[in-house]
Amino acid sequence: MILVNGKLTGQINVLDRGLHYGDGLFETIAYKNKHLLLWDEHWRRLAKSAKILNIDLPDKELIRQELDFVVKGQEDMVLKLLITRGVGGRGYKIPDKPNPNRIIISSDWPNHDSNLRQTGVIVRLCEMRLTRNPKLAGIKHLNRLENVIARSEWRDHSIFEGLMLDQDNYVIEGTMTNLFIIKDNEIFTSDLKYCGVEGVMREQLIKLASQLDISVKFINIKPSTLQDADEILLSNSIIGLWPVKQIQNHSYKRKPTVITEKLQHHIYTGIFY
Amino acid sequence: MILVNGKLTGQINVLDRGLHYGDGLFETIAYKNKHLLLWDEHWRRLAKSAKILNIDLPDKELIRQELDFVVKGQEDMVLKLLITRGVGGRGYKIPDKPNPNRIIISSDWPNHDSNLRQTGVIVRLCEMRLTRNPKLAGIKHLNRLENVIARSEWRDHSIFEGLMLDQDNYVIEGTMTNLFIIKDNEIFTSDLKYCGVEGVMREQLIKLASQLDISVKFINIKPSTLQDADEILLSNSIIGLWPVKQIQNHSYKRKPTVITEKLQHHIYTGIFY
Repeated sequence: MILVNGKLTGQINVLDRGLHYGDGLFETIAYKNKHLLLWDEHWRRLAKSAKILNIDLPDKELIRQELDFVVKGQEDMVLKLLITRGVGGRGYKIPDKPNPNRIIISSDWPNHDSNLRQTGVIVRLCEMRLTRNPKLAGIKHLNRLENVIARSEWRDHSIFEGLMLDQDNYVIEGTMTNLFIIKDNEIFTSDLKYCGVEGVMREQLIKLASQLDISVKFINIKPSTLQDADEILLSNSIIGLWPVKQIQNHSYKRKPTVITEKLQHHIYTGIFY
Repeated sequence: MILVNGKLTGQINVLDRGLHYGDGLFETIAYKNKHLLLWDEHWRRLAKSAKILNIDLPDKELIRQELDFVVKGQEDMVLKLLITRGVGGRGYKIPDKPNPNRIIISSDWPNHDSNLRQTGVIVRLCEMRLTRNPKLAGIKHLNRLENVIARSEWRDHSIFEGLMLDQDNYVIEGTMTNLFIIKDNEIFTSDLKYCGVEGVMREQLIKLASQLDISVKFINIKPSTLQDADEILLSNSIIGLWPVKQIQNHSYKRKPTVITEKLQHHIYTGIFY
């Protein structure tokens, strides 16, 4: 189902600046067992990003009602919410009174093998790099060509995700996931000051680790750091937290660390319904 | 007037990957005194970019017919041609058989003061940086948030353009123009290996200079290089080639160099009808 500004339609104005410039934001939200997961957290991230791009968000309650309408009668859905700057004239200049458009698209829940949370997934390193721009770092905006090109580098269905490096050869994240490393009872994740997306699930995991008194360090991750890890994990709002069993030719022992067991327990019994 | 895949409509499919990811390309083409300017050159650039993004272009002749349809009965128009990857499902993965969409939008010719080619324009330096990504450098793709943010930095109508630096503090181009410097009877322009757009008018000027035996050097331009210049010029398909009379607080003598006179003469009597 697709709603554009509350109306059932599959069309949007050709002059939308989301199309012309990627001038907008999006959120991918899990609806699981009839529950909208982490709505407040998604909204908070969206609001933070909208402030940076200077986009006026619609009313939170209005969006919530539209999300509820879209999922009515469903069990599990993936919801994508897009907010664009709205229609504009020729040129980059933002209209004096922009009128943002809101789009909600529901998709079926992906039929992932539920064992993957234990057995782990296969991952590759992408050639396409993430560019560094501190102003846009962390934001889930609509300029995603780098991710598109990175994802186009492989067709092998057994590979779940590709990790992306930045121009300085630091490993930042997956094309659609954030990256965590477990080593000697500590958690490490990439510093997202210069590029990458601050995932809502990533934020939850960082908060949770702090509540569990597990150290989380924000570092520059080199490819070699991945090989030295006890465990590598990927997170996003739909998968939760999945281990990696193989990166390129390097395999990881698939005995989960205590940290992973604790985090997964919280996600799959606490956050996920 | 707006044509989407040859049909008169103002709407496009919400699932278009141009909207979701900026997964597409565009050209801005001048139609002047009933002539489509530099069509072959625009097509060549589009084809080069499409090859990099692996997007199948529609037939050149078909697009040409649609452009001709849109401008019928008009004198001067600005034409924007967008080619997107087309509709996609959830996720960055390119569909197995993508079906690109083509969009043509016509706008009125801007009513610029025709004296500006002699008197020059006022320009500022933007805070927003262009990120370096050699894979995407030169391409006129739909990921243009950096330009949008740069253009949002000023509202003063007397300022025509903002110059953008890259992360290494080199001046690359304007938000919508390419940059040329004249110094001691040579032309200098920024090296676009890492970022920036290879403008069609820029290419024309480089070719023309070579025909006129004027040296063109591709360099890293520092802000201080701008101040030392005999003349600064901006180019794009709509304005042609305009001098800069002021950047920030630095003013330039407005006696055009012989090089500028030659280049402008060619553009406004040769390329422009």
